[in-house]
Amino acid sequence: MGDRVKPRLYKGLRDLLPREAGARDWIIQKVKGVYELYGFVPLETPAIERLDVLCGSAGEETDKSIFRVVGPDDEPLGLRYELTVSLARVVALYKELPKPLRRYQVAQVWRADKPDKGRFREFTQFDIDSVGVPSEVADTEIIAATCDTLDALQVGSYRVRYSSRGLLNTLLTYAGIDAAMATDVFRVLDKLDRLGLEKVRLELTTGYVDESGDPIPGLGVSGAQADRIEQFLSVGSDDRDEVVARLQQLFSGVDGAEEEVDRVGAISRQLELLGYGSDKVLLDPSIARGLAYYTGPVYEAVLLDAPEFGSVFGGGRYDSLVARFLGQRIPATGGSIGVDRLLAALLYMDRVPGGRGAPEVLVAVMDRSLLDDCLAMTWELRREGIRTEMYLGRPGRLGKQFQYADRLGVPLVVLAGPEEKARGAVSVKDLREGARYAATVMDRETWTSERFGQREISRQDLATTIKELLREGAR
Amino acid sequence: MGDRVKPRLYKGLRDLLPREAGARDWIIQKVKGVYELYGFVPLETPAIERLDVLCGSAGEETDKSIFRVVGPDDEPLGLRYELTVSLARVVALYKELPKPLRRYQVAQVWRADKPDKGRFREFTQFDIDSVGVPSEVADTEIIAATCDTLDALQVGSYRVRYSSRGLLNTLLTYAGIDAAMATDVFRVLDKLDRLGLEKVRLELTTGYVDESGDPIPGLGVSGAQADRIEQFLSVGSDDRDEVVARLQQLFSGVDGAEEEVDRVGAISRQLELLGYGSDKVLLDPSIARGLAYYTGPVYEAVLLDAPEFGSVFGGGRYDSLVARFLGQRIPATGGSIGVDRLLAALLYMDRVPGGRGAPEVLVAVMDRSLLDDCLAMTWELRREGIRTEMYLGRPGRLGKQFQYADRLGVPLVVLAGPEEKARGAVSVKDLREGARYAATVMDRETWTSERFGQREISRQDLATTIKELLREGAR
Repeated sequence: MGDRVKPRLYKGLRDLLPREAGARDWIIQKVKGVYELYGFVPLETPAIERLDVLCGSAGEETDKSIFRVVGPDDEPLGLRYELTVSLARVVALYKELPKPLRRYQVAQVWRADKPDKGRFREFTQFDIDSVGVPSEVADTEIIAATCDTLDALQVGSYRVRYSSRGLLNTLLTYAGIDAAMATDVFRVLDKLDRLGLEKVRLELTTGYVDESGDPIPGLGVSGAQADRIEQFLSVGSDDRDEVVARLQQLFSGVDGAEEEVDRVGAISRQLELLGYGSDKVLLDPSIARGLAYYTGPVYEAVLLDAPEFGSVFGGGRYDSLVARFLGQRIPATGGSIGVDRLLAALLYMDRVPGGRGAPEVLVAVMDRSLLDDCLAMTWELRREGIRTEMYLGRPGRLGKQFQYADRLGVPLVVLAGPEEKARGAVSVKDLREGARYAATVMDRETWTSERFGQREISRQDLATTIKELLREGAR
Repeated sequence: MGDRVKPRLYKGLRDLLPREAGARDWIIQKVKGVYELYGFVPLETPAIERLDVLCGSAGEETDKSIFRVVGPDDEPLGLRYELTVSLARVVALYKELPKPLRRYQVAQVWRADKPDKGRFREFTQFDIDSVGVPSEVADTEIIAATCDTLDALQVGSYRVRYSSRGLLNTLLTYAGIDAAMATDVFRVLDKLDRLGLEKVRLELTTGYVDESGDPIPGLGVSGAQADRIEQFLSVGSDDRDEVVARLQQLFSGVDGAEEEVDRVGAISRQLELLGYGSDKVLLDPSIARGLAYYTGPVYEAVLLDAPEFGSVFGGGRYDSLVARFLGQRIPATGGSIGVDRLLAALLYMDRVPGGRGAPEVLVAVMDRSLLDDCLAMTWELRREGIRTEMYLGRPGRLGKQFQYADRLGVPLVVLAGPEEKARGAVSVKDLREGARYAATVMDRETWTSERFGQREISRQDLATTIKELLREGAR
């Protein structure tokens, strides 16, 4: 056998055991359902991309977090760190794809960042994007689809917040800040939620020393410029129309401002028309989003009942990304659901339906000599569409088999010993009865031995009875 | 913007455009349905594993085909080349997992092999395994689940073929071949389908020179030993009982033979009991399977209507794999569906239902001034559960929008110009009518301009009419 190998995982990675894996799949199927209702179609791209495709798209920070891949030849390769760059490559490569191209993709991505609580080096993104659409209607649709998705997942209260890079660029003009500083300024503004206004102002201007004693350099923005940025950051309101009015007033006379304010205003109006009010979507000019390639509206979503999980959705318009490959601008907008973050939040809030897809029946095996009968019952139930497992451990010891069913969350156990067989009968035990009697003083031994929730039925009624019991339990 | 980047893929990789991606997902959902009916539960593991976990499990050949991954630290990492090794790691790591553990996992795997037609460096495997079960019932179940899966996918005729490493080890005893040669001998036997009996015999014995002039070395098995191997290979029959009888006769008196023949016989008998006859499952002693870790029954499946795609399913029992990590043997058996190979075969046979999940309705936009009405209709249909896309390209030009719907396979287009709007009406065009009239001499221009399949309805009847039309089309 050789030396024993430690069954270790690389740090920042994790396994999803059945309950978590089932919950993750439940999320994915729900999201897929909404995206398909919106007419988005699927696309799959490989996890490995050529390094020149990956690097230089989303900014230097992102490039640094790419895992390199070494194959049998000397090609420089990497694991994708997001799905948007691969979509841009696909759009450039298959010119025959119809446009608008509205696609969804759910897949793993990898980032070689420092792992942290709830922050993994491999995680799942679920993206929707509309490619080839300059109109803000595409942005409206992404935001609306996100609301419908979060509603379908019953996450409780949430807020989608949106703004636009156009507004932020207008802010630079308004404040008299050089456009060359845009990326740095936006990166600092993106920290507003996390650091608060005071520290953001310090980082924009003179810098400061943080709690751990590390110096945080400032960007050298003047006090007067920082005042204008603060004015902009304070236009926020729960009333989207009010935010639009304040922006119009603040940017009055600023070159190009009218068009940018009109665009975020149009999105607000369309959302209102479709029933997405301020209880779901806020126009929040402070939203910047980190990635370098955004060119227009940007958006994100947070769960109000679990804000500590951060944004579970983020995206924006990126009209220049395809041009990296094609030499020609193709307008595009879209966003990404952080499936693992959403999973963590839903599990934390206990909002994932349990037992989805788990077996409904365990056929217990009391004796190897009864194996054929157990096999026949198992397949009979499966052929009736009932999710059925036959106990494959050592036959005998019923207590152990009940315990196994209980741990797996299987509600019903089918038992047939030699006496039942002789009578043409079979017993069905409803393990949910145990939970119903849990308020009494009985321990497991008592209720198993006392045959709580156990009834004998005719063998030929097996499937019918099981179906009835499952319907009852669902009530 | 910098230099233009070529939108290239690394060789051996591929993108799945919407039709293929939809078909792949259709396969995955079907397989998942069957596996869940059998009570298997999901598990997810990361694509990146530590290199010591990956290497040395499945044999040297496999180790050579691992893509290395380079992260921010010096940990030796690789991309998984299959899912079984990760399952063994999980079983060793989480001792609290209930056993038997019956899990499914669908995920990408990577192999740095020479790419070839239909052979990719990244592909999808869909695995089921039962861990902790020594009984052959677990093997029977894997084979039965495979049959049910292939039936659910309507692949046409197929054969699952099984044998066991135990039979092959018995063959070595019978032929007087040293057990140390087992791996080499089995590797050559695994080529029987591809090379035929004559070349396999030559490779077992003296070697030969192949068509390209390359010398293929022989294993040095004697002529008398090769005769005994040939006897074994000739016991095949479409009647599983007959094969069992012939094996009993051939191996009569060979040490340990009875137990091994009984085991494959028991699987055959259980399959018969459950309705899986020789039209679905053959006992074929020549099956060897390539991986080094198999210890008991092995199995594979081929599609009889597309045999050129090779085996679409393969697996076997591997009672020692977990011991690599745990130092303790845990019996396990399972198999893997090659999803991409199955996808290629199903697309080749044209057996994938088209348009699964694709939009059912396109709301055409005739004029930007009518945008709000189009938005309202789109969301109204979506809220009725109808997969609806609003045309997001430039408004106007109906012909282009019909063509777009046609290319996407969207059957119905909703149109509402200013005149219809004034009448409180809307038009619905059924693009399937065009196909129905395709036998006539009309070209596309004619039937679009002639409004074939187009009817005007009251705006308030929109959703009801669309539902009726979709039901009609489904007939």
